[in-house]
Amino acid sequence: MSENTYPNVNDLTLEEKASLTSGGDAWHLQGVEHKGIPGYMITDGPHGLRKANAVSTGETDLNDSVPATCFPPAAGLSSAWNPDLAFRVGEAMGEECIQEKVAVILGPGVNIKRNPLGGRCFEYWSEDPFLAGHEAAGLVKGVQSKGVGTSLKHFAVNNQETDRLRVDARVSQRALREIYFPAFEHIVKDAQPWTIMCSYNKINGVHSSQNRWLLTDVLRDEWGFKGIVMSDWGAAHDRVASLNAGLNLEMPPSYTDDQIVYAARDGRIQPEQLDRMAQGMIDLVNKSRAAMSIDGYRFDVDAHDDVAHQAAVESIVLLKNDDAVLPVAADAKVAVIGEFARSLRYQGGGSSHITPTKMTGFLDTLKDRGIDAAFAPGFTFADEPQDPALTAEAVDAAKGADVVLLFLGLPEAAESEGFDRETLDIPAKQIDLLKEVAVANANVVVVLSNGSVVSVAPWRDHAKGILETWLLGQCGGPAMADVIFGVQSPSGKLSQTIPMDILDDPSMLNWPGEEGHVDYGEGVFVGYRYYDTYGKEVAYPFGYGLSYASFEIADVTVTKTGANTASATATVTNTSDVDGAEVVQVYVAPGKADVARPKHELKGFVKVFLKAGESKTVTVDLDDRAFAYWSEKFNDWHVEFGEYTVEVGVSSRDIVATGVVDLDGDGKTLPLDEWSTFGEWKTDPIGGPIVAEMYVKGESGELPALPKNDMMDMFLNSMPINSLTTLLGETGKESTAFLLDEYAKATA
Amino acid sequence: MSENTYPNVNDLTLEEKASLTSGGDAWHLQGVEHKGIPGYMITDGPHGLRKANAVSTGETDLNDSVPATCFPPAAGLSSAWNPDLAFRVGEAMGEECIQEKVAVILGPGVNIKRNPLGGRCFEYWSEDPFLAGHEAAGLVKGVQSKGVGTSLKHFAVNNQETDRLRVDARVSQRALREIYFPAFEHIVKDAQPWTIMCSYNKINGVHSSQNRWLLTDVLRDEWGFKGIVMSDWGAAHDRVASLNAGLNLEMPPSYTDDQIVYAARDGRIQPEQLDRMAQGMIDLVNKSRAAMSIDGYRFDVDAHDDVAHQAAVESIVLLKNDDAVLPVAADAKVAVIGEFARSLRYQGGGSSHITPTKMTGFLDTLKDRGIDAAFAPGFTFADEPQDPALTAEAVDAAKGADVVLLFLGLPEAAESEGFDRETLDIPAKQIDLLKEVAVANANVVVVLSNGSVVSVAPWRDHAKGILETWLLGQCGGPAMADVIFGVQSPSGKLSQTIPMDILDDPSMLNWPGEEGHVDYGEGVFVGYRYYDTYGKEVAYPFGYGLSYASFEIADVTVTKTGANTASATATVTNTSDVDGAEVVQVYVAPGKADVARPKHELKGFVKVFLKAGESKTVTVDLDDRAFAYWSEKFNDWHVEFGEYTVEVGVSSRDIVATGVVDLDGDGKTLPLDEWSTFGEWKTDPIGGPIVAEMYVKGESGELPALPKNDMMDMFLNSMPINSLTTLLGETGKESTAFLLDEYAKATA
Repeated sequence: MSENTYPNVNDLTLEEKASLTSGGDAWHLQGVEHKGIPGYMITDGPHGLRKANAVSTGETDLNDSVPATCFPPAAGLSSAWNPDLAFRVGEAMGEECIQEKVAVILGPGVNIKRNPLGGRCFEYWSEDPFLAGHEAAGLVKGVQSKGVGTSLKHFAVNNQETDRLRVDARVSQRALREIYFPAFEHIVKDAQPWTIMCSYNKINGVHSSQNRWLLTDVLRDEWGFKGIVMSDWGAAHDRVASLNAGLNLEMPPSYTDDQIVYAARDGRIQPEQLDRMAQGMIDLVNKSRAAMSIDGYRFDVDAHDDVAHQAAVESIVLLKNDDAVLPVAADAKVAVIGEFARSLRYQGGGSSHITPTKMTGFLDTLKDRGIDAAFAPGFTFADEPQDPALTAEAVDAAKGADVVLLFLGLPEAAESEGFDRETLDIPAKQIDLLKEVAVANANVVVVLSNGSVVSVAPWRDHAKGILETWLLGQCGGPAMADVIFGVQSPSGKLSQTIPMDILDDPSMLNWPGEEGHVDYGEGVFVGYRYYDTYGKEVAYPFGYGLSYASFEIADVTVTKTGANTASATATVTNTSDVDGAEVVQVYVAPGKADVARPKHELKGFVKVFLKAGESKTVTVDLDDRAFAYWSEKFNDWHVEFGEYTVEVGVSSRDIVATGVVDLDGDGKTLPLDEWSTFGEWKTDPIGGPIVAEMYVKGESGELPALPKNDMMDMFLNSMPINSLTTLLGETGKESTAFLLDEYAKATA
Repeated sequence: MSENTYPNVNDLTLEEKASLTSGGDAWHLQGVEHKGIPGYMITDGPHGLRKANAVSTGETDLNDSVPATCFPPAAGLSSAWNPDLAFRVGEAMGEECIQEKVAVILGPGVNIKRNPLGGRCFEYWSEDPFLAGHEAAGLVKGVQSKGVGTSLKHFAVNNQETDRLRVDARVSQRALREIYFPAFEHIVKDAQPWTIMCSYNKINGVHSSQNRWLLTDVLRDEWGFKGIVMSDWGAAHDRVASLNAGLNLEMPPSYTDDQIVYAARDGRIQPEQLDRMAQGMIDLVNKSRAAMSIDGYRFDVDAHDDVAHQAAVESIVLLKNDDAVLPVAADAKVAVIGEFARSLRYQGGGSSHITPTKMTGFLDTLKDRGIDAAFAPGFTFADEPQDPALTAEAVDAAKGADVVLLFLGLPEAAESEGFDRETLDIPAKQIDLLKEVAVANANVVVVLSNGSVVSVAPWRDHAKGILETWLLGQCGGPAMADVIFGVQSPSGKLSQTIPMDILDDPSMLNWPGEEGHVDYGEGVFVGYRYYDTYGKEVAYPFGYGLSYASFEIADVTVTKTGANTASATATVTNTSDVDGAEVVQVYVAPGKADVARPKHELKGFVKVFLKAGESKTVTVDLDDRAFAYWSEKFNDWHVEFGEYTVEVGVSSRDIVATGVVDLDGDGKTLPLDEWSTFGEWKTDPIGGPIVAEMYVKGESGELPALPKNDMMDMFLNSMPINSLTTLLGETGKESTAFLLDEYAKATA
């Protein structure tokens, strides 16, 4: 069948068009088979394929799925700061979709980690929208390079699990545009995901699934999205409203296609809108045909395992390494403690839960590699009191070892889709164990397994080294071993701040909301944007991560490249005898601004792989958006004129060098009117001379004389000119009229 | 003229009715003299009478007014925690109004000190609405006991000066009801102020002056306000909209009464509404007639000065008194340093600026009392670098003294109506001076003069004693001397937290707003409600203040007095040989709640004056509002059932004893519907059995069987029952219908 012969929406009856706008079952599109439109499968990602073994509308066990490569969830992969790596992961996932006849894999999820307690943080990317958008764009491009679609989710503002099907996220326009939208916006513009999945929640009172402003005005008209929007599973409640808003596809089906037919007949849906929505579905099917027609394809399990392995290595963040306790020498006497070392936690719970093609834990890896180590489980995952015998056994194992690898973390039950965490802490019994072990052996390296940030400040002094390994996917064990024994240097950087105390996080004042709503009271001050701007201590800052290598960043130059654009160049040198990688991070710090802006924001990064002794020069271009804020006044992005500092560093708190650019600004202004204050009139290029003239006329008696003393000037400066009668009595009207008339003439 | 012969609104023409709804000039009502309605004067308070010397519509110098007693501004008086004292101040102000033929004095201002940088904090009462409402109610009752009206202001949510004429305060309903409204509500219900002044700003998009929900639905219909509402000066912009909203009086007049006439003629104003608004003005005039007809009245200047003196003494808060450096012995060798000691700052700037009847600074007081003391000015108020000669002179004066009284504070130019402060700090040169002086003499007592909180943490270690005297009115000098030399023991308590750092305040994330709006993102977590709930260190907590006496609080009992009421009783003993006063503070700490509630909230207080050795037993009654929160779900106050802790203490962080009451709750519930989650159905007394029946029918095959595993249960619990098709496919509709049908039957 050639593309020319594919049906289009005009070939379909009203009922057939309606049928395309809901699924055929929980995991398939609804085809119109007799007109050549197949009902392809779409199913879960996002860090590997979750295709249920028993595909049916009544699938009820999310953990029973066909084997697929389990890549590191986004909490891990995001720490790689490596979009190319995400691309390779995406390519591999695309190939697995082809084998499994899956047209669209549901992911990536790029919601902002507003609060680290969010239950789904493990499968989201970052507290920073630039990082999330640029990394996840790589994954989208990788999948789609194979002719398989992605579903960017959950659009938008799904930042918590509590009451997620109903909660109304009340967010300022500025926070939406600067924090909660940009990852979606960037990926739409840069990678055109075939589909987008809307979120369950409401945004400022309207469910995402029926929010026309969100799904049509912003997503399609402003950003140019060309694909289809599907509902999250169960997110559509009013199919007519949703279809009118721009939702192409209800998943899973509620078996109410007749509602669409009736609404189209009685005019509640315009024919053009139904056609647009249905044509989108046909276009999606057509884009999928090539890959879906490949029969008998088998992906390369080992090659994909290799990608998962490298992704896992780059996901690991070295937080602490006193006395160079890591890497561990090949001949060191090692004690391994902690149940996680034996039963590695490598992914999160919920719709993203994958059945891996292989799985090697850390202890297994040591065995595979012939490395001898004492092992003690130390504790159980169960929420039960510590067994003193386990502690004693662990302390015994620690004694006399050269180094203790202590595997701590969050048990699987502690985090999942579906609920938010209540504490940032790992279980107290694990911390108690650490303290006991540290008494027995000073060389303790804590190896953390957790999907979202856990607190480290309460116990980090008891550990000489800390490796934050997040959840690493199916190659967790080998990747950990590589880093621990120095086969590869760690290169991960935090994609999320580790706070001292969860109560420091300003979103805690509105977390997780109440009575059906959650107020995003912190506005744009999310993550490091809060901590850095308000000067609050953190355990480890955004962008932070150690290496076995050492790097020097030099020759930083910042150049203005246009009216409101710039570039930053730096030379990075590996000054050690170990191969490694450094992430050059570029932050923009605005000068004086009309709004409260974060101290600085990430606007570019490059991961630089350097052999021992090697140097490379990198350049980061900064477009006008890098300097802009969202102005509610202009209802648009706004670049103010003036000085901006461009910072080059290796974390948000480790800025190596800065340069200043003096930008022209975009020249946006609002015209003066009766609601503009005297102060605004005085400083306006057109209004200023008119005010001066009014004072002259006041002295000559042609107009009322304005009172002149410091206090009155102060009152006047903040007073809209429509309030002049307050100071001048009835004659004040003449002055207001004079200002407005002269301004009208001057701007005519 | 007997009351029976007073005109009422039916005696007036349309034009005359309209004329009553705006002023006659900037400081007078517009009378209808020929029909017996005089145009009485109304003018500024709030801590004394500010009646301009040259009364005219063109008054331009706020500082040129007739002499009146200057009482401590509210920042001081609020620290007294003494409504009876406020009553006596109010009585005196009422008498001064009678003498000056002022029918209404404009005050008190009870806006909440959302952020200590607010420029007008010096004339507001507290960060806590209970304290503000109960103290200011005393003042209102005092004034009105004399037949003179008050104007409770600025209604509502005027918490900053920046852009105050236009700014849109975006505040949740809950924060409005729990934080920004209760002081107004209490005073309306308890004291019926004759007038209320609306604020300049918008609240959630609507100017207060034309906000019918605010001025009519809440103020009159809910709270039962019987008086009139006037605009703040220049706050009315659309007279028709304002009159329809419930604004009786535009001040000053914009000379647009014809607009009201036209609008009444063409139906944009209903006749009944115009009559209501005009009749309110007639009622106000009638209430004023008795006092305004007293001719030749002269108030007792000395007696009012005595009231101002006692008010000033009780306003002083002793923050620190190491080694009992205070009180200063009569025969001690004293050095007095600081320009404030000579040129005392005793009030704030703006519309509240009073010309006092007398004024004695601290140095003058010492001279009057024959106390010898060396003096050095130490610094100037001007914003100029420190003169080293002044420092040297001050250090010299300090050397060899037994004690140094170092007067520091905010120069007058640092705070005023009209602008907000940019820093919490006193000028750096004063702090530098303190450090130098402290080297020369270890016994330094800092005496602070400032209208709103200043930071003390950066320098307090250099002072042995700190007296926070705020602004004390015209008896500042004598009051300070009384406390410093032990004539009276200090008894003031902080009405506002002194934070460690202004950046700790959660309102700083949205301060003072931008682009025409300010988001109250911290919700109800204002002042100690934030610091105590989130466990943040403060310099000095809300309710804190030392005494020369010592007190013991014992025999605390907490008793349930009704379904949702309680009382707390305590015995307070002065265990010292010094007379003094202690403030018994009662806080309510909710147990587990459906919303995020502050750790505890002030719900009662009693100031207890005790001679040396004396004991008194006090009781504080707690009504149901003491336990309630504002529920947006019920759009009403809600008392949840369960345990509440009643805390008795002497500051928000010094709780002496607690008792627990187990309240019945108010029984409010919402009916279940299709948007209620499975979890809510399961736990509902009616819904629970229906869900159980549905499971039984699922097993027997009469209804679809719900999937049963832990993860599915978790998903299900947060899922509205209208989403059952997500799990069950088309047959899910039957289950939803079953639940709704059975519930309808059970509740029919």
